[in-house]
Formats: sequence, C-alpha cells, structure tokens
Amino acid sequence: MISEHYRSECAVCRTLEVLGDKWTLLVVRDLFLNERLSFKQLSESFEGIPTNTLSDRLHRLMDHGLVEREPYQDRPVRYEYMLTRKGRSLLPVLKTLAKWGEDHLGGTYDPDSAKHAFRAES
Amino acid sequence: MISEHYRSECAVCRTLEVLGDKWTLLVVRDLFLNERLSFKQLSESFEGIPTNTLSDRLHRLMDHGLVEREPYQDRPVRYEYMLTRKGRSLLPVLKTLAKWGEDHLGGTYDPDSAKHAFRAES
Repeated sequence: MISEHYRSECAVCRTLEVLGDKWTLLVVRDLFLNERLSFKQLSESFEGIPTNTLSDRLHRLMDHGLVEREPYQDRPVRYEYMLTRKGRSLLPVLKTLAKWGEDHLGGTYDPDSAKHAFRAES
Repeated sequence: MISEHYRSECAVCRTLEVLGDKWTLLVVRDLFLNERLSFKQLSESFEGIPTNTLSDRLHRLMDHGLVEREPYQDRPVRYEYMLTRKGRSLLPVLKTLAKWGEDHLGGTYDPDSAKHAFRAES
C-alpha cells in the first residue's frame, strides 16, 4: 500500500487521484467482466492499451489495494490479475459511467456480450 | 460541437474519453457547486488547477456541449462559465465518485459547505 497524501479533502478529487486517467478504469472494467486475466489478455482488450501504460496502471491499482495477482506459471513467472473486494466496490462508478455513455454518447454496455466477446478472442 | 470518433463502442470508454483526466471532472464539480464562475474563480479552486490546463479543459467541455459561457464584461471581454443541461446530467457520475471517496479514501463531500467555502474566498 502506498502512503496516501491527497491534494484535498474532497472525496471526488481523492477518487479521481486514485483512478488517474481513463486507462485505469478500463483495466477495472475488463477485470469486472472477466474476473481473472493475464497481462497478455489485458493487453489485448479492444481499446489497445499500450503495454507500458498497462504495466503502470496495474501497479498503481495494486498499490492502492484494488487489484491483486497470483502466479499461474513458473519460469518465467506469469501472473493473473483480479480485483480485490475494494476494487469490486468500484462497480457503481463503472455503472454510472456506462449509463451516461449510453444516454449521451451512443455507446453500448452489455457486460454479458462484452464478456463473451473478450473470452472468445483469448 | 466536435465530430465524435470514439475508440470503441463501449459506453464506459466513451464517457472516459470525453471526461479525459481528473481536472475535467473537478471543473464540472465546481460548476455544480457554484452555478456560474469566471475563469479567475475557477482557477482559484482548492486543488490549484494550472491555468493552461483549465483553459484546455473548459474548451474541451464546451466542444462536447457540457459547458457554455456568457460574457459579463467588455473591454476586455470576460466570461462566466456554466453547465449546460447535458453537463448537469453528469451529477450521478460525480455522486458515485464522491461516495466511493468517502467510503474508501477518507474524503469528505458536503456540497453546501464546499459551496460556502468557495464563495467566501471569491
């Protein structure tokens, strides 16, 4: 866990400081939809996150206790990433972002079909 | 309005593309709390947004139809900024971010006291 020095008392600001940029929440989205994903699987998500950005955001999420990882292979060691309980508490945030994007930007959000599409590729 | 080419169909991703980074939502927060603010007042919010970042985010928000402005002074012309109806529709997003920050990061969010504090300084 990192020591937490926030820019202000404001709860909105603190949340945004932890979440950082859009890539962080897209990683959280993919882990919500798929439960456990390897680095390679996460790097293959539709929006094409650069691998150095993915590595940075995963470490940031682990530092904040939102994501944890478990090795699934030795030599070389490979990890699967998953949300912690604290990470899963971000579901209402994702849902309101999805609702706004559906209502105002013509986006779609169907967790079941997204999950299916993602798994079919992996 | 800008032409809208999004990275994916995903409603979460589209919303995050529009909102960009944390500064955008902090500007939206301040306009929710105060209704109308000048550039100078926005630049004096507690978190200390750099003025070039503020200028960029205001134009971004206007390009997306979330913020509009009206002149309140000529020579030199000065504007007050306010949320459009579409901008005000972001309230559920702000509320869930605030709730998460209160529950998990020790932040506080009291619109009435924040509004009072902000106005007292201006």
